[in-house]
Amino acid sequence: MKKTDVLIIGGGPAGIVTAVTGKSSYPDKDFLLIRKEKQVVTPCGIPYIFGSLGSSDKDAVSDSVLTGPGVGLIIDEVVSVDKKNKVCKTAGGLECSFEKLVIATGSIPQVPAWLKGSGLENVFTISKSKAYLDEMLEKLQHLQKVVTIGGGFIGVEVSDEIVKLGKDVTIVEILPHVLGAAFDEKVVIKAEEILKSRGINLRTGVGIKEILGEKKVSSILLSNGEKLGADAVILSMGYSPNTGLAEKAGFKINEMGFIMVDEYMRTDTQGIFAVGDCAEKRDFITRAASGVMLASTATSEARIAGMNLYKLSAVKTFGGTISIFSTAIGETGFGVAGLTEKLAKEEGFDIVIGSFEGIDKHPKTLPGMHKQFVKLIVARESGVILGGEVIGGISTGELVNIIGLAIQNRMTVSSILTMQVGTHPLLTAPPTAYPFIKAAAIIAKKINPAG
Amino acid sequence: MKKTDVLIIGGGPAGIVTAVTGKSSYPDKDFLLIRKEKQVVTPCGIPYIFGSLGSSDKDAVSDSVLTGPGVGLIIDEVVSVDKKNKVCKTAGGLECSFEKLVIATGSIPQVPAWLKGSGLENVFTISKSKAYLDEMLEKLQHLQKVVTIGGGFIGVEVSDEIVKLGKDVTIVEILPHVLGAAFDEKVVIKAEEILKSRGINLRTGVGIKEILGEKKVSSILLSNGEKLGADAVILSMGYSPNTGLAEKAGFKINEMGFIMVDEYMRTDTQGIFAVGDCAEKRDFITRAASGVMLASTATSEARIAGMNLYKLSAVKTFGGTISIFSTAIGETGFGVAGLTEKLAKEEGFDIVIGSFEGIDKHPKTLPGMHKQFVKLIVARESGVILGGEVIGGISTGELVNIIGLAIQNRMTVSSILTMQVGTHPLLTAPPTAYPFIKAAAIIAKKINPAG
Repeated sequence: MKKTDVLIIGGGPAGIVTAVTGKSSYPDKDFLLIRKEKQVVTPCGIPYIFGSLGSSDKDAVSDSVLTGPGVGLIIDEVVSVDKKNKVCKTAGGLECSFEKLVIATGSIPQVPAWLKGSGLENVFTISKSKAYLDEMLEKLQHLQKVVTIGGGFIGVEVSDEIVKLGKDVTIVEILPHVLGAAFDEKVVIKAEEILKSRGINLRTGVGIKEILGEKKVSSILLSNGEKLGADAVILSMGYSPNTGLAEKAGFKINEMGFIMVDEYMRTDTQGIFAVGDCAEKRDFITRAASGVMLASTATSEARIAGMNLYKLSAVKTFGGTISIFSTAIGETGFGVAGLTEKLAKEEGFDIVIGSFEGIDKHPKTLPGMHKQFVKLIVARESGVILGGEVIGGISTGELVNIIGLAIQNRMTVSSILTMQVGTHPLLTAPPTAYPFIKAAAIIAKKINPAG
Repeated sequence: MKKTDVLIIGGGPAGIVTAVTGKSSYPDKDFLLIRKEKQVVTPCGIPYIFGSLGSSDKDAVSDSVLTGPGVGLIIDEVVSVDKKNKVCKTAGGLECSFEKLVIATGSIPQVPAWLKGSGLENVFTISKSKAYLDEMLEKLQHLQKVVTIGGGFIGVEVSDEIVKLGKDVTIVEILPHVLGAAFDEKVVIKAEEILKSRGINLRTGVGIKEILGEKKVSSILLSNGEKLGADAVILSMGYSPNTGLAEKAGFKINEMGFIMVDEYMRTDTQGIFAVGDCAEKRDFITRAASGVMLASTATSEARIAGMNLYKLSAVKTFGGTISIFSTAIGETGFGVAGLTEKLAKEEGFDIVIGSFEGIDKHPKTLPGMHKQFVKLIVARESGVILGGEVIGGISTGELVNIIGLAIQNRMTVSSILTMQVGTHPLLTAPPTAYPFIKAAAIIAKKINPAG
């Protein structure tokens, strides 16, 4: 029987960051990570394999990120966890006992059971398996008409990469707009305009009923009865937490299918943690169970688990998912942090909205200037910022992180009005019209019109 | 005698933002802004007039930013302020009474009295006057050998633009490094490397003694006795608060020459405010008087003055200058927020330093990827972040604003370790190695090696 102090199951970002943070926090302990993939890829980089990168090798994560800091690595599949005796067994016949266990088994692409034809040749999911992706990339070379089912982030990003290869690409999205679950309407309308200008066909407000073909896919049947020809179908209909192992072992699973954890990322069992896409998430603001899976959130949870493995720290806890997303289509960045207007209303907040469109360089005559739009969602009574959305240039990713940090600090509109920023012609909006502050000023005025 | 409710003297960013914020907060009041410049330029954009923009017209601020919201505008020079009777007089003979006055007279280029030859033809300063800049730009067309005296932000930015015009450019800086007052050594060494690679000659650790020539400049004499040939000399030796008017009127001036103000930006006289480069600054952390002049800080002060003109708000006060700077040389951004290591040590803080170099896109194989270096300076006892420095790509400007916001919220290293960020391959560092969080982790480890 092999023995380790800390065993981590899963080699994605959550597993890696738990292992590395844990080893750094407790250097005297043995850390062992078991994962089934020979080689892992950066999950957020996967869509870019199809175009910008051109190969999954360029998205591969080197094992030295683990072995460098002294974490052991075994390629194998853990098939059972004995919670009581603290032993895992693998498909390869290994038994390994542990003091602490971290479950970081991630998520798997969702394919609805009712969807006929999903087993046909040239029907793909966006798996996180490098071997699968390599095969998919190879096959796509020879297929012209590609239909993506599901216009969330992954579906949009993959489609935008594939269209660069000269393919005929259509996104089918059941919501009225692509990215409609993440952003409010104005933002998604802009995203749709850009996608169309880049040659992507959009079919929104309509679902898929069936995938048709013999052996190979030939077309899809939409919920309105229409048929769309297709040489390839990419199913990007979301991901499910990969909790088969945890369920079998008897861990508590929440109503959305995630392994239940507390603020230290501890499961119901002493010494056993869960992090990343398989672990329960609660929304930072509403405290409701959340299904949002992000590598960035996963690594935040992983750092917290890693630090709390042997010694709890009351200040290093996970306060709930803020849901900070960003993406880029061409030169345009889209970002969101916290609640959208729609979600805040559904949750019953009395909210005030403000938005401002400015520029991301100044003066606006500078080459490469991009418009920058910021929308904020604020709770009327307290003035606390609940969410924000950004359309801008390449700085959108960090700008939405500023809004995320304001949410994390539970900042109010007043404190944004007195916020100090650095500005520079080539790097930011002008100091006179920094859209984040301007949007806050508009809200302050609405809350208190008398000044 | 003309009458207004609120009179603002000065048409730079501080004056504009005070006027616009004030008018928005108190729409029933009359606002009048008096400035002497026919047309104003965005100050931070000035260096880019010489290269990227090619003309000061492209950096001009439209008067509609004032007149649109209903602020009156008079082009004239205020020559006296009667504090007691609340009346101003202008060079044009106008008398204007006011209820509230805001002094936003800005700053003027510093030219040391001992510097002989500064009056010679083709010796320039970086003035904020559009007419002056137009003439300077015209003259520079015909001059080949340009020497910039002073390698601060403005000197570096102007030099980097002028070299693009094919000029032979040398920066003379008395400190051991250019930008040496703003950044710690590692950052400035990187900046110097890039400047050199762009063809700029650097002479550091040596000052200027005299400017030589008859009528026109022909060379400069350095403090080490060496002579440098020069067809043009650009003096960028800092700026002084423009407080002649305020001094004459009897306002209290602090030890560094700035008009004294409180946290609401009020001067010693009821109903009279001062904002921007002419107004006193205190460092956010050390509370010491500060000489840092930034348009971004000026607009932050201006918003606070504008909101507090008629009704004080205890939550809308200016907490001191955080000093958030950023600049770009070519594709590389440089940013700093709060205290540098050097300054923190000089002030007597017991500090812990951590730095991490990662990438600003991920995976690193993505086109356009830039290295991203983050250094943090933390107070050992409290874990509070005192400062941070960044070298990165185009997102540096907003990344340093994230650090600025962390400082403003007096965040600790622990809270950075649990900070949530959004990440995206094309827009940010990877979630597994976000340099800001990585640097914090290194510091946490140093403060508490046992985890």
